[in-house]
Amino acid sequence: MAAPTETWPITFVVDGARQELPDAVVVEDPLEILVAIDDAAASTGAPPAPLAVTLRTPGHDRELVAGLLYAEGIVDGAADIASLDEAAPGEAAGSRVVARLTARRTSTTTPARPFLSTAACGVCGKASVDAVFAGGFPPLPAGPRVPLSLLLELPGRMAPAQQLFASTGGLHAAALFDARGELLLLREDVGRHNAVDKLVGALLLAGQLPAGERLLAVSGRIGFEIVQKALRAGIPLLVAVGAPSTLALRLAARAGMTVAGFVRPGRCNLYCGAERVLLE
Amino acid sequence: MAAPTETWPITFVVDGARQELPDAVVVEDPLEILVAIDDAAASTGAPPAPLAVTLRTPGHDRELVAGLLYAEGIVDGAADIASLDEAAPGEAAGSRVVARLTARRTSTTTPARPFLSTAACGVCGKASVDAVFAGGFPPLPAGPRVPLSLLLELPGRMAPAQQLFASTGGLHAAALFDARGELLLLREDVGRHNAVDKLVGALLLAGQLPAGERLLAVSGRIGFEIVQKALRAGIPLLVAVGAPSTLALRLAARAGMTVAGFVRPGRCNLYCGAERVLLE
Repeated sequence: MAAPTETWPITFVVDGARQELPDAVVVEDPLEILVAIDDAAASTGAPPAPLAVTLRTPGHDRELVAGLLYAEGIVDGAADIASLDEAAPGEAAGSRVVARLTARRTSTTTPARPFLSTAACGVCGKASVDAVFAGGFPPLPAGPRVPLSLLLELPGRMAPAQQLFASTGGLHAAALFDARGELLLLREDVGRHNAVDKLVGALLLAGQLPAGERLLAVSGRIGFEIVQKALRAGIPLLVAVGAPSTLALRLAARAGMTVAGFVRPGRCNLYCGAERVLLE
Repeated sequence: MAAPTETWPITFVVDGARQELPDAVVVEDPLEILVAIDDAAASTGAPPAPLAVTLRTPGHDRELVAGLLYAEGIVDGAADIASLDEAAPGEAAGSRVVARLTARRTSTTTPARPFLSTAACGVCGKASVDAVFAGGFPPLPAGPRVPLSLLLELPGRMAPAQQLFASTGGLHAAALFDARGELLLLREDVGRHNAVDKLVGALLLAGQLPAGERLLAVSGRIGFEIVQKALRAGIPLLVAVGAPSTLALRLAARAGMTVAGFVRPGRCNLYCGAERVLLE
């Protein structure tokens, strides 16, 4: 598997002085995702079919695929996945994961929405937006209530675990905390959605979904799809260093999720679900 | 057309004190893109076909569509676009733009790569990665040579024009400068790729492509697709506040593009094309 960072020769310029030196740059590389049905009765069946290609930072590729399949509703749990196999694609650049789904998922291996969308950031199919607002998710649990002071510390608690960010400054993180603010898991990726998919995929493969007693913290902004992925994972509290969007807040508010944005030492904005935050 | 920001009631918490107040939040909303062929001989032909749905910040929607069609190779210039019509989609949420292409584009209205990809950020089809590296673009011009001091000022010159960011803190900007550092055009969007598409689309519709004497500055990171869009627009210098990725640098270096990252007062990293930067 490719490394998550590479060395690149740069000209570093500071205060008029220049220096030629090697610098660490985050790797962005295509991952091809293929899906096959693990059906013993059809062992001579069709080969795995391409589902999507994503640009991601190598590492935790199986978790990324598991999380993406879960977010898209193609699988509902680890039991729906027979295997996730990484394979080098031969001479071509990039990597490949083949997901074999158990036969009971046959009817749904065609995603509920096609992986249409664009080259743009934060994209999704309109069918998905409508479906989500039509109430495709089970309700969130009451979940934990956490002191505000703890919530404000979460970004700072992520930092020591953001190893790739520390060396490259070039990628996003998603972190799972328990209700006492203990960091349980952190994933990094050049794409902020990928970081969440890797984290949720790890929970899925470990049989730890839904995660109704957990908090999700993200390093960046809260777009619609970040809320969608948290909701799918059953996580009732979402904390971000960045700003939310209206569509993200509309979904979160309807689902009863707690959303805090612009979280930093001493301050934040609570957008919805403030009842889970103990303010005194 | 929907506004680019909305007011949301928040609980603002600072230093233990709380305050309920309205806050501006950036709008994220689906835009449906449909494509039709403007063929007089087939005036009874098929209705516009859906091409993609993107989540974007409302505003400059026609430019966004023009830029996306251009980035994807569906059109090669303003002459290929007969019309771009915005239409409210009736009772549903979201917006819609119908692009009517001139008949000579008929054979290429099916994109060279399908708009597959995922819900992830910074995604693209592998076919596109391969095609780009196979040399699908004309070479960049020599372009301007600019003093380093000017380059370091560009992010600061963007800030006064980032009106939506100033009120919401929640979106990205792409800005076009001339070789003297004059700000010519700035576009904002919740998606950083959308901001570049809006900017390039505006140039396309104004007949100002390729833009070989210009500089492109972006507020965020430089992923593969940002370089791809700059390259497609013929812009030889790319400046970013954030970090680049390896795939972005590989494409930029092969194309002879100048890339500066982590640009701030007094310092930056030059990753490639340093010959266009006057360092003394």
